[in-house]
Amino acid sequence: MRALLDHEARAMLGALNFGRLGCVDHGEPYVVPINYVFDDESIYSHSLPGRKIDAMRAHPRACLQVDKIENDLEWRSVIAYGNFEEIRGPGDRRSILGKLLARFPLLTPVESAMVRDAAAPDSIVFRIIVDRITGVEEE
Amino acid sequence: MRALLDHEARAMLGALNFGRLGCVDHGEPYVVPINYVFDDESIYSHSLPGRKIDAMRAHPRACLQVDKIENDLEWRSVIAYGNFEEIRGPGDRRSILGKLLARFPLLTPVESAMVRDAAAPDSIVFRIIVDRITGVEEE
Repeated sequence: MRALLDHEARAMLGALNFGRLGCVDHGEPYVVPINYVFDDESIYSHSLPGRKIDAMRAHPRACLQVDKIENDLEWRSVIAYGNFEEIRGPGDRRSILGKLLARFPLLTPVESAMVRDAAAPDSIVFRIIVDRITGVEEE
Repeated sequence: MRALLDHEARAMLGALNFGRLGCVDHGEPYVVPINYVFDDESIYSHSLPGRKIDAMRAHPRACLQVDKIENDLEWRSVIAYGNFEEIRGPGDRRSILGKLLARFPLLTPVESAMVRDAAAPDSIVFRIIVDRITGVEEE
């Protein structure tokens, strides 16, 4: 098992678009699968209101874990850590939802409507401002 | 999106053997892929010493998230929550490592040696005593 170099870990985070978001809800870890885009500084995603948003509003420290598992002996896993921030400006919301839609054409009709009307109050657009990335691989 | 019934969530947790362990390290969420077995009460796994073991010794609350993702619109995700407990008795260690080995024939030679010599101090055998399971699906 070896630690990935910083550029290897970043490249993997940028190449993938699906991972598990970890956050802390009243001291309890909470992990959920999310789609995301990474621009080398922040991880962008969106969500309906719910437990993960409530948790990160109260405790902004979060992480995103991604992996490529070939089998038990050949795998890579990367974790990016950072602080949660909501994107509230309508222009920024529209721009980020547009990037997410370009990456995830299977967004539901509700989500596609959110891109057209980024002011829709139900959609939470957020980013994790990444300040640390670590990765390991076994091969 | 609908909530899974308790027996559906338990069945999925029992059928799978790979998931993401979430724990809390000094207030920061930490997520790592693990192999496990679930006996309907506890999630069993093992690990070399390291960050996740240190984190759970200090803050025993943990979760395991598993999912089956067909695509962005068809997926299931289950989370089991519970408290970390180390298994220290040599007999219990041997029994649990044996079950893990039966399930994961790709264990490394080092790990197979641990099954034969469960007293080896390097291997940490642990369980998460599950007290809550939730699941959702979109289909």
